[in-house]
Amino acid sequence: MSNFHSHMSLALDEARAAAERGEVPVGAVLAGPDGVVLAQAGNRTREMADPTAHAEMLVIRQGCARLGSERLTGCSLYVTLEPCAMCAAAIAAARVARLYYGAADPKSGGVAHGARIFTRAQSHHSPEIYDGIGAQEAERLLKTFFADLRVGRPA
Amino acid sequence: MSNFHSHMSLALDEARAAAERGEVPVGAVLAGPDGVVLAQAGNRTREMADPTAHAEMLVIRQGCARLGSERLTGCSLYVTLEPCAMCAAAIAAARVARLYYGAADPKSGGVAHGARIFTRAQSHHSPEIYDGIGAQEAERLLKTFFADLRVGRPA
Repeated sequence: MSNFHSHMSLALDEARAAAERGEVPVGAVLAGPDGVVLAQAGNRTREMADPTAHAEMLVIRQGCARLGSERLTGCSLYVTLEPCAMCAAAIAAARVARLYYGAADPKSGGVAHGARIFTRAQSHHSPEIYDGIGAQEAERLLKTFFADLRVGRPA
Repeated sequence: MSNFHSHMSLALDEARAAAERGEVPVGAVLAGPDGVVLAQAGNRTREMADPTAHAEMLVIRQGCARLGSERLTGCSLYVTLEPCAMCAAAIAAARVARLYYGAADPKSGGVAHGARIFTRAQSHHSPEIYDGIGAQEAERLLKTFFADLRVGRPA
């Protein structure tokens, strides 16, 4: 399995684990320039009572802590859902080299929708962007999660 | 001194302390619905090796931890500089009721410039926004900091 498939597969595992914790099922993996996984996380906004604890923010912060650097030069971020504006701006600030994401997010995405962070002249950095990888499974997880919420099944 | 002046004065103190640590001098204060200070911070991106450790993000996270909630309903955020897109999106996610900021930031701001986060249909929430409070001192701190960097004085 090529790197980007195995890394997205790991991100999907994190999304599933997030759903089991009652969190919106989004997962992310950060890989170093050599492809080695530096950090992996699912959403933890409810558990941590922290609106910034999106999966992408957690792996960026963990990866920077691990490298002892504000910059993730050469690193790749894999996330199951299109990042929101907050996460996209953090990806730019951290100088992530490549962004792979699964499902599109017309409601809250900030890459191909809404604020379109990387298209702004202000954006300090734009990663290479690859979308649609693992999108079907990422969407299925999200749809199941929100459908279960609506019928009142335990999240 | 009215609340918003004393809170912005405290945020300016945090900006000055950030400059002394060699951080970009931006400070923030989060106040609860009753005006009591819940959290105060300056930038710590260098010290923490964390590109998300902007003053605003730190007070949002500290305030949420203190309240045990992902939401800062009724709270006011005071920041010496126009928030960037990352911080503005976090402010929306946290449902901060009022945003007071000092200096405008045409280069990296995401409120009145660039991504203009709160004008997006996607934005889950828009705070009331008051700008220009303490702007002159906030600008002076930033200009001095970057001028000192350019002439090689210890930051």
